[in-house]
Amino acid sequence: MAAGSRVERVLAGDARALATLLRELDDGLPAARQDLRTLYPRTGGALIIGITGNPGVGKSTLVDGLIARYRRQGQGLRVGVVAVDPSSPYSGGALLGDRIRMQRHATDDGVFIRSLATRGQMGGLSRSTADVAAVLDAAGFGVVLIETVGVGQAEIDVVTAAEVVVVVTAPGLGDDVQALKAGILEIADILVVNKGDRDGADRALRDLTAMLELARPLRTPPVDLLRTVAATGEGVEALAVAIDQRRRLPDDVRAARRRQQAQAQLMAIVGELGRRAVGLALGTATKPGPLAHLVDEVAARSLDPHTAAEAVLRAGLIPR
Amino acid sequence: MAAGSRVERVLAGDARALATLLRELDDGLPAARQDLRTLYPRTGGALIIGITGNPGVGKSTLVDGLIARYRRQGQGLRVGVVAVDPSSPYSGGALLGDRIRMQRHATDDGVFIRSLATRGQMGGLSRSTADVAAVLDAAGFGVVLIETVGVGQAEIDVVTAAEVVVVVTAPGLGDDVQALKAGILEIADILVVNKGDRDGADRALRDLTAMLELARPLRTPPVDLLRTVAATGEGVEALAVAIDQRRRLPDDVRAARRRQQAQAQLMAIVGELGRRAVGLALGTATKPGPLAHLVDEVAARSLDPHTAAEAVLRAGLIPR
Repeated sequence: MAAGSRVERVLAGDARALATLLRELDDGLPAARQDLRTLYPRTGGALIIGITGNPGVGKSTLVDGLIARYRRQGQGLRVGVVAVDPSSPYSGGALLGDRIRMQRHATDDGVFIRSLATRGQMGGLSRSTADVAAVLDAAGFGVVLIETVGVGQAEIDVVTAAEVVVVVTAPGLGDDVQALKAGILEIADILVVNKGDRDGADRALRDLTAMLELARPLRTPPVDLLRTVAATGEGVEALAVAIDQRRRLPDDVRAARRRQQAQAQLMAIVGELGRRAVGLALGTATKPGPLAHLVDEVAARSLDPHTAAEAVLRAGLIPR
Repeated sequence: MAAGSRVERVLAGDARALATLLRELDDGLPAARQDLRTLYPRTGGALIIGITGNPGVGKSTLVDGLIARYRRQGQGLRVGVVAVDPSSPYSGGALLGDRIRMQRHATDDGVFIRSLATRGQMGGLSRSTADVAAVLDAAGFGVVLIETVGVGQAEIDVVTAAEVVVVVTAPGLGDDVQALKAGILEIADILVVNKGDRDGADRALRDLTAMLELARPLRTPPVDLLRTVAATGEGVEALAVAIDQRRRLPDDVRAARRRQQAQAQLMAIVGELGRRAVGLALGTATKPGPLAHLVDEVAARSLDPHTAAEAVLRAGLIPR
């Protein structure tokens, strides 16, 4: 890479180069993709933590507490945050909401916060989340926190990017145990009952303990259960310690997980590129693509859609 | 085709051969797929009607009324029904619920009812719905009614299979106009306020009239609005007439819609076959596929997932 290239500036900690790269990645610019390729072998150093849970459980306050904790840890440990909001009308660059939520870190050079909105396309979100985390990782952030609301596909996607997944719940949000969808529990490494000083917290912890006991034979290592009061900071240190423990898993367990994540990421991107490539190959009625004749034949009933679909796949998909 | 082949028996109106073919299609048996291929050029004769709407609006009663109306129409017009229930725990063959709902047609040879449950995979549902409709079409059913609950992806999928889409609503289900999601209105050819004798029906019709008036410049031909009381049969004849009118659209409008449907079906099937082919190509940790090395390289950070995904697509996907 040339001296002073954007990749070099990102690696040197230039926040402006970093922000530009992330914005251009979001817009799908080829130069940004090339930079991501160049940066990829530098990833793998960061501790990437996924924080997910229903609205109102206090995820942002917990993330705020973890930022402060990791910043205090010293050695100039920089912290990146990717806040994924599937309901946000903002596009990729909106920082205002996060700066308000986490304003005490707004002037801290060692903290970088990036919001991602879905723009209605869940598949794309998964890719962007992983891309942003990878860039922050390569750029030398020691910790990357991915905060996502536990609805729809997003809470599953976070698993493909994070090394440790923390699922946050809170008492008083309906039937607490039932409110945790089965899928959410399957992805949790650590389960947190936040707002742990509220009525119902003891009961929620009891219920969850019983449930995790039932699930124990299925999970190695077992899911950790913790109580926090993010608003006062209570339990945040214990959470950070539990997260750290996960890094001390046997190498083969960590390697198996990395491979699973690589496969899930790969399949998500193949799906997205594939959809785009098929769309271009078929084209539209006014601007037909090279395989438009297949659409015409299906519409004319001379070819069934299954045989046509197989022909599309056999023709090979050239990603663009 | 050989004399007495299953395709011949289906074309001759053999209900048992038809049921077997549909079950084997659901199970993905190659012989059934081949039969669908053979039958496909015989499709295009049936009037395929999609009926969608929220739970409780009276879709099944309305479908029941339409079955009776088309059966009365004479000329031995046979009616097929595909009931899609995304919440049903039953697998493809469950008929009990429908036979109870539509029991007065249970002993009528000219009526064939088929239930489809999602088994949790929306993409597959879309394909199955279109396949069942195509088989009934080829088998000489003059009318095929696809009944689907208006939730999630199912109400969009029905558009790719139906020539006319009827969206059913009813007063007293919360805020009626707001309850119609934007997406639902976009797919409606005909909007029905069922339970039209209830309190609130007049108001719902007024609100919907105003809304459709606003949408008029966007829709050619405009969306029809009708009031029915399916329980007494009131308005069912008018609905059937409105449906028939849609068949009298200019040929170019109908051809454009057929092409759109063919393209949407094709893309759905390509997506599903593609996912399966990629899964086989990558394999699993214990049983790696021919492209497993790409997963290993991404996991080892020597290759970024975008470049790996492009390599998967360029390698070509062999559908199985």
